[in-house]
Amino acid sequence: MLNRQSASLLSELLIMVFHIFLVMLLSGVGSSSVLNSTSLEDQLFQYIDDHQEKFVETLKKWVAVESDSIQPAQRSEVKKMVEMAASCLRDLGANVTLVDMPVHEVLDGRNISLPPVILAELGEDPLKPTVCFYGHVDVMPANKSDGWETDPYILTDIGGNLYGRGATDNKGPVLAWIHAVSAFKELRKDLPVNLKFLIEGMEEAISIGLKELVEREKEQFFSNVNYIVISDNTWLSTEKPALTYGTRGNAGFSVEVQGGERDLHSGALGGIVQEPMSDLIALLGSLVDSSGHILIPGIYDDVANFTEEEKKLYEPIEFDIEQYKVDVGVKKFLYDTKEEILSHLWRFPSLSIHGIEGAFHEKGIKTVIPSRVIGKFSIRQVPHMNLSTVECQVKRHLEKVFSERNSPNKLRVYAEEGASPWITNISDPQYKAAAKAIKRVFKKDPDMIRDGSTIPIAQMLQDITKKSVMMFPIGAADDGEHSQKEKISRKNYINGTKVFSSFLLEIAKLHKELLRGSK
Amino acid sequence: MLNRQSASLLSELLIMVFHIFLVMLLSGVGSSSVLNSTSLEDQLFQYIDDHQEKFVETLKKWVAVESDSIQPAQRSEVKKMVEMAASCLRDLGANVTLVDMPVHEVLDGRNISLPPVILAELGEDPLKPTVCFYGHVDVMPANKSDGWETDPYILTDIGGNLYGRGATDNKGPVLAWIHAVSAFKELRKDLPVNLKFLIEGMEEAISIGLKELVEREKEQFFSNVNYIVISDNTWLSTEKPALTYGTRGNAGFSVEVQGGERDLHSGALGGIVQEPMSDLIALLGSLVDSSGHILIPGIYDDVANFTEEEKKLYEPIEFDIEQYKVDVGVKKFLYDTKEEILSHLWRFPSLSIHGIEGAFHEKGIKTVIPSRVIGKFSIRQVPHMNLSTVECQVKRHLEKVFSERNSPNKLRVYAEEGASPWITNISDPQYKAAAKAIKRVFKKDPDMIRDGSTIPIAQMLQDITKKSVMMFPIGAADDGEHSQKEKISRKNYINGTKVFSSFLLEIAKLHKELLRGSK
Repeated sequence: MLNRQSASLLSELLIMVFHIFLVMLLSGVGSSSVLNSTSLEDQLFQYIDDHQEKFVETLKKWVAVESDSIQPAQRSEVKKMVEMAASCLRDLGANVTLVDMPVHEVLDGRNISLPPVILAELGEDPLKPTVCFYGHVDVMPANKSDGWETDPYILTDIGGNLYGRGATDNKGPVLAWIHAVSAFKELRKDLPVNLKFLIEGMEEAISIGLKELVEREKEQFFSNVNYIVISDNTWLSTEKPALTYGTRGNAGFSVEVQGGERDLHSGALGGIVQEPMSDLIALLGSLVDSSGHILIPGIYDDVANFTEEEKKLYEPIEFDIEQYKVDVGVKKFLYDTKEEILSHLWRFPSLSIHGIEGAFHEKGIKTVIPSRVIGKFSIRQVPHMNLSTVECQVKRHLEKVFSERNSPNKLRVYAEEGASPWITNISDPQYKAAAKAIKRVFKKDPDMIRDGSTIPIAQMLQDITKKSVMMFPIGAADDGEHSQKEKISRKNYINGTKVFSSFLLEIAKLHKELLRGSK
Repeated sequence: MLNRQSASLLSELLIMVFHIFLVMLLSGVGSSSVLNSTSLEDQLFQYIDDHQEKFVETLKKWVAVESDSIQPAQRSEVKKMVEMAASCLRDLGANVTLVDMPVHEVLDGRNISLPPVILAELGEDPLKPTVCFYGHVDVMPANKSDGWETDPYILTDIGGNLYGRGATDNKGPVLAWIHAVSAFKELRKDLPVNLKFLIEGMEEAISIGLKELVEREKEQFFSNVNYIVISDNTWLSTEKPALTYGTRGNAGFSVEVQGGERDLHSGALGGIVQEPMSDLIALLGSLVDSSGHILIPGIYDDVANFTEEEKKLYEPIEFDIEQYKVDVGVKKFLYDTKEEILSHLWRFPSLSIHGIEGAFHEKGIKTVIPSRVIGKFSIRQVPHMNLSTVECQVKRHLEKVFSERNSPNKLRVYAEEGASPWITNISDPQYKAAAKAIKRVFKKDPDMIRDGSTIPIAQMLQDITKKSVMMFPIGAADDGEHSQKEKISRKNYINGTKVFSSFLLEIAKLHKELLRGSK
């Protein structure tokens, strides 16, 4: 005879067995694949494949929201978009907080508030790693009249490519993350990690207020985060996946030469005054030689050594130089080999002269001697260059060149707001997990790449939170972010969803091994 | 007994004598001063002094006409002004032709015709020299809101200075000529020269159509002209009169560097492309050194020798370097002595870099690598530099500098419309006559000066007509042509009228001596 306790246990056991069978039945998978992660992955992939039409429909709904953060008049659309994203996260079961941001901009005399930032949390199992995903749901402006072949706010499938503003930057990848998590939920699988979401609506408008929020939340929201993942860039190739482990920084400079009190006429005064333009041209001409080498003394001192180990990372990278020339629209690069080209884009500094303020800039000729001209240039810094050291070197160099000219004019060099380069350690567990997930879905090892541009979010999150940050793109090289041809391929959108789901399994596994190893 | 013929002669003689006494009576001058030119000059000067209020009133009426030739909407005012000038010339007894110009500009879809050009002739005595005066009655735009302290179209006397648009450029001097001639007429004195007037209404709008007109009239209107006088510039000093014997020319250049097909992002591509701005800065930097010396090979080859004789002309020139610095608004010139400064403004070439088209030119920083940039510079040429030689030298130099850079970009150098320098012989009779007239009125020898700017009218008239051209200013250095403080002093306006009347007597005398000498 069973006592009441035993009867209760038995009935619980029966209910559990029934539940397991029910789940197996609903999932439509054989019992043999239920109990190991490979099989769960297959289930997830199958689920994602089966629901791709629905996922594309959701992306279509998101793209339809004109959440342009550049034009303050569109702010309500951005807020609507943030609310839609929050709603999706609530559907996943996440605990969603919409953090109000301080009032910021002024339009037609009215204060325009910033959209709130989403902080969402899903799970708080202390035995699981906590992965925080960063993404944004605002977009750059887009108008059909800008030269779009399709309506930028109607997601349009042309030959397997989904065209629309925000398709790849960054609505598609944000949704791929949400769908990946939803697959676990719909399959009633336990999420292998705790998840956090940091989703903003002002990324295209330099993430106003975000840094302050991250600083405030450093010891709260971010305290138990182990890994931060950003999926807001693209592969280097159109076909081969990539993981990004660094970006260049940027240091902008203005160099101003002030002559007399007002512009002069080149007939009336040409030949007897030291022209500020002549000084400025000499200053700008002292910055970089015809091979692209920066001439500022000391500028290369802190550039990290290009080790043999690092060079090896370049070998497997898929990079078609001829195609890249066509894409970029130039006939020749300064370098000929893949390694030279990519390393000069990623891990060596560059200096670009952007223009001159205060001089004549229109068509034709104006016989003016401008009195005050300001040259604009910037240096893309790389590890381990230091922003304030670079500023000192630039100032010292320009002051020296200027003093050698014995000019009676006045020199002023000032640094515009700069951003540090970002570099991370690719032997970090999340890079390994991501590489495994990529291999599983795409049957290829990812290219380990960097980005020549500055993506301040990675460096900012790493700097403040001191957590491991990874850039994990799913968009292809030809996705055309910010262009009139922005798209994400259906293949990358769906495979990206799979790769994120697989990543969650892999990072959980690696993290567990890591914990076991460290005990 | 007198026969009928003798009686008729006697009666004519009596009438003449009566006339002479009548004129003497009306002129209010003593009989002792009637019969020599000094006395006539005194009469003229007296007449001019006596009528200065009337002359100022006429200038006030002229300044009140907003004959702005820059804005097509004001064209009817320019035409009204030309008609007023024609009417004044008719009052002098001149035979006035208004030459219609071809339809030219378009405003609001309507064709706006050019104002007619005045060709007027007064006298055709083959024994007298023929002096042709060139002037213009259009003005630069002016609005009270531009910063004028007085209404620019209401001539306002402040401490003896007559402020108003066109007061010195060129309505005042044109009227001074008309008043000088009217003095002879009102005093019933025979004009000692034949006079012609070439008066236009489009000078501030680069004298559209004038060159073609002068070419057409070369063998007609200009055929019997001996001297051409222009009074459309100012003295070098505020107090000491001057005669101008040369102007610099101008050769404008555009140097274009074309890189790829479109602008690039300095993050995405900086470091691997040869940036057009970098090429352009190097090209512009190769043009002139920090002492203002032009670095284009051969550019100084054709510059006229600075002879001792020429240097002597600089010695008496009244030129306050310290005051000039204040006027110009600079702390230091490239040179320290009067001779160095003036010679580098007038008789040595200069090169000014005006600006760059196609590059970033706004406030702040834009991380752009511009794909096509066009540098603008110009060279003020001097005798005996040749425009097409200069163009060849510039192109050859820039092409050499560019080829040394091994840049894959495309260079294009093109000359904008240029103007030749003008120089004339100051031993020409009209310079001597003008110098005598100046000495008579101002009690000073004139400074013999040049102008660093290009005044194409002098060179154009000299080139086409092959006649002697003189620039005979009556405005002072601080008259502020084109500025919000344009003025002519009452003193210069009235003394200018005297000096022109005296000049007519002197040139007639010198011309007669010349003819006698050449016989």
